[in-house]
Amino acid sequence: MGERKTIMETFQPVAGGICAAQGFSAAGVHCGIRHNHSKLDLALIKAEVRCAGAGCYTTNKVYGAPITVDREHLQDGYAQAIVVNSGNANTCAPNGIQLAQDTCGLVAQALGIDANDVLPASTGVIGQAMELAPFEKGVPAAAAKLAATPEGSHDAATAIMTTDTHAKEFAVEFTIGGKTCRIGAIAKGSGMIHPNMATMLLFMTTDAKVEPAVLQKALSTVVPATFNQISVDGDTSTNDTVLLLASGLSGAEVAEGTADYDTFVAALTVVAEHLCRELAADGEGATKLLECTVTGAPDLATARAVSKSVIHSTLFKAAMFGADANWGRVLCAIGYTPGDFDISKTAVRLKSRAGEVFVCENAAYHPYSEEEAAKVLKEDEIEILVDLGCGDATAKAWGCDLTYDYVKINGDYRT
Amino acid sequence: MGERKTIMETFQPVAGGICAAQGFSAAGVHCGIRHNHSKLDLALIKAEVRCAGAGCYTTNKVYGAPITVDREHLQDGYAQAIVVNSGNANTCAPNGIQLAQDTCGLVAQALGIDANDVLPASTGVIGQAMELAPFEKGVPAAAAKLAATPEGSHDAATAIMTTDTHAKEFAVEFTIGGKTCRIGAIAKGSGMIHPNMATMLLFMTTDAKVEPAVLQKALSTVVPATFNQISVDGDTSTNDTVLLLASGLSGAEVAEGTADYDTFVAALTVVAEHLCRELAADGEGATKLLECTVTGAPDLATARAVSKSVIHSTLFKAAMFGADANWGRVLCAIGYTPGDFDISKTAVRLKSRAGEVFVCENAAYHPYSEEEAAKVLKEDEIEILVDLGCGDATAKAWGCDLTYDYVKINGDYRT
Repeated sequence: MGERKTIMETFQPVAGGICAAQGFSAAGVHCGIRHNHSKLDLALIKAEVRCAGAGCYTTNKVYGAPITVDREHLQDGYAQAIVVNSGNANTCAPNGIQLAQDTCGLVAQALGIDANDVLPASTGVIGQAMELAPFEKGVPAAAAKLAATPEGSHDAATAIMTTDTHAKEFAVEFTIGGKTCRIGAIAKGSGMIHPNMATMLLFMTTDAKVEPAVLQKALSTVVPATFNQISVDGDTSTNDTVLLLASGLSGAEVAEGTADYDTFVAALTVVAEHLCRELAADGEGATKLLECTVTGAPDLATARAVSKSVIHSTLFKAAMFGADANWGRVLCAIGYTPGDFDISKTAVRLKSRAGEVFVCENAAYHPYSEEEAAKVLKEDEIEILVDLGCGDATAKAWGCDLTYDYVKINGDYRT
Repeated sequence: MGERKTIMETFQPVAGGICAAQGFSAAGVHCGIRHNHSKLDLALIKAEVRCAGAGCYTTNKVYGAPITVDREHLQDGYAQAIVVNSGNANTCAPNGIQLAQDTCGLVAQALGIDANDVLPASTGVIGQAMELAPFEKGVPAAAAKLAATPEGSHDAATAIMTTDTHAKEFAVEFTIGGKTCRIGAIAKGSGMIHPNMATMLLFMTTDAKVEPAVLQKALSTVVPATFNQISVDGDTSTNDTVLLLASGLSGAEVAEGTADYDTFVAALTVVAEHLCRELAADGEGATKLLECTVTGAPDLATARAVSKSVIHSTLFKAAMFGADANWGRVLCAIGYTPGDFDISKTAVRLKSRAGEVFVCENAAYHPYSEEEAAKVLKEDEIEILVDLGCGDATAKAWGCDLTYDYVKINGDYRT
């Protein structure tokens, strides 16, 4: 028992972002897709060796051309580089697939690898023609920069930003079979940018040794519990993409059905949850991070749906902006969650570093101090704790408040 | 062919609102549930005779106590009065059902009818105790006012308002079997009011002679195509209620499976669509009415889901506030609509009284003038015409733009 470690002891945050794991280098450059010369717009991530690869993509019936190419290039389960541009989503654009393939060709040439091992991703305006010219200049430049200064995780994270207010990187170190391994990541938020939609992009790397099918299984386990539980505005983008590459260079083997596999999934989850919080907190116009934890649900699907329903409620998000303990809006959002479950035992608590208020018991008002509640809700990270009281399933979801700035960014951007 | 009438000729708008049909009187009074003495807060609608009755209610698992009582009182298919208060939703409140029943008792006593024939409804704050005292004073006052001035539709429509900016009434006259009959209605919007949620309430009356089961069938046909296709903020309220009473006093009989039934459903639809437009246009903070018409859908469910998805998209709503022809957000919302359908032939047009712009063809950019589009979108009623190009099904949905004022009303109401 004395040996039992906390999650943060088991998975220690380390520097390095997407380059933290052995075998990965990254760079970000300005190649001219964006007109602002000071804004990086092309990221390149390179692995020293062919890696097992896994991907999860948007469920929108409209999706970006790069996603078609990613699916194709990951059919054999391996990849060696990721190339990402911001400024143009390459979605509903003429010759989009050809352009994405040509970009992979440029990367292959610059890095001396197979074009089939390159995974493209794009974010930015949709429906506008994309030119190859910026890539013809930018890809060799990124490859050169990456060779000169391989630890360019921050530049890569910066190059994929759209309306994000800061670059997002994270990495953890942990042990598998006595061997130290790492998972690193960069991400950008699912915000929107004039004049069209953008995307949530996540790229993760690890030096654990994982077979492609096992890697995909691990990613497909973690994504529904984490990235699919974020909502900034409820609009599922056309380009959402999560890619994960495993170099195996740590020598730490992760086989399915083992305790090591569970450790690996737990590590992926730590990285994913950290980035979920960062992405939600940096939602467009957001002043507060909202994290809803549902316990006591009859099943996992209900737990996930209820937590997401709460942080997705426009009314509740607006109430959080106003620091009002509007538990009725939480209960309402729980009530319209699809599925057949009992709401009569529902309890709701609102919590932050300033304290906790118990606002709803058995689906009805629980006496609380409005003053105390206002103090709790003035903080910038709010936990909404929902106990359905009718089972053992739990889930989390992350969102942000709805503010004047959200309307400004997405509606009033012409004025 | 020369005899063919337009819809507006067949169903002529008339004055009188909820009192337009034979046998109905109404009144609105201030009874003290609201603290503002100048705000009416209790509406009473009385029929001279027992009426066939029908109801449709919120699908939220959390629902108001009056809904339980309505379901019970309509089990026999008949009712004679409707009593509605604003200021307190009687939802998640102690002894709510008992209070709703006691209110019915007061109405029965004041009007000399059976308590089982009274249908209650409430809108306002949830989770707060409701007192009987205001009803003890208000119900007899409303009954007296209704006897003195029976044409009080406007007062009744005013008494049920919460954040609505104006009272909503409508009535049409039409002919069934050579007999003139009418459908009248009052409504309030699904807006929200400090500090909790409110409701969409619709009350309709007709002097057509319709059996209860047929009346329910007609209402259950019209509601999914109309009121269920409105979205102001996507939050399904706990108290949404539509009630319809048929006095039969016109002598115009409506039997199932006849052309007269179709006429009756068409008349109900005209009234419902008119009120849908009014409710959406008066959405909280709204500056524009959005009406999305989907054609060419493979089936009705897809047509309804796609149209509702478009007018429900936060991003698209914000773009409409900014008068930006952001067709990518329309396409995105169509793309994430659940269900399996082809989006590749999708065409999108934006239309208003200032003109029409063709912005998307075959799910890709269709050349248009930004200047022309801005002119079209500066109007206060915008039509979004979506043709999926893969079937015959059509549907409409109504919404409004997302504005600074929405955030102010729902979030910043404490400042």
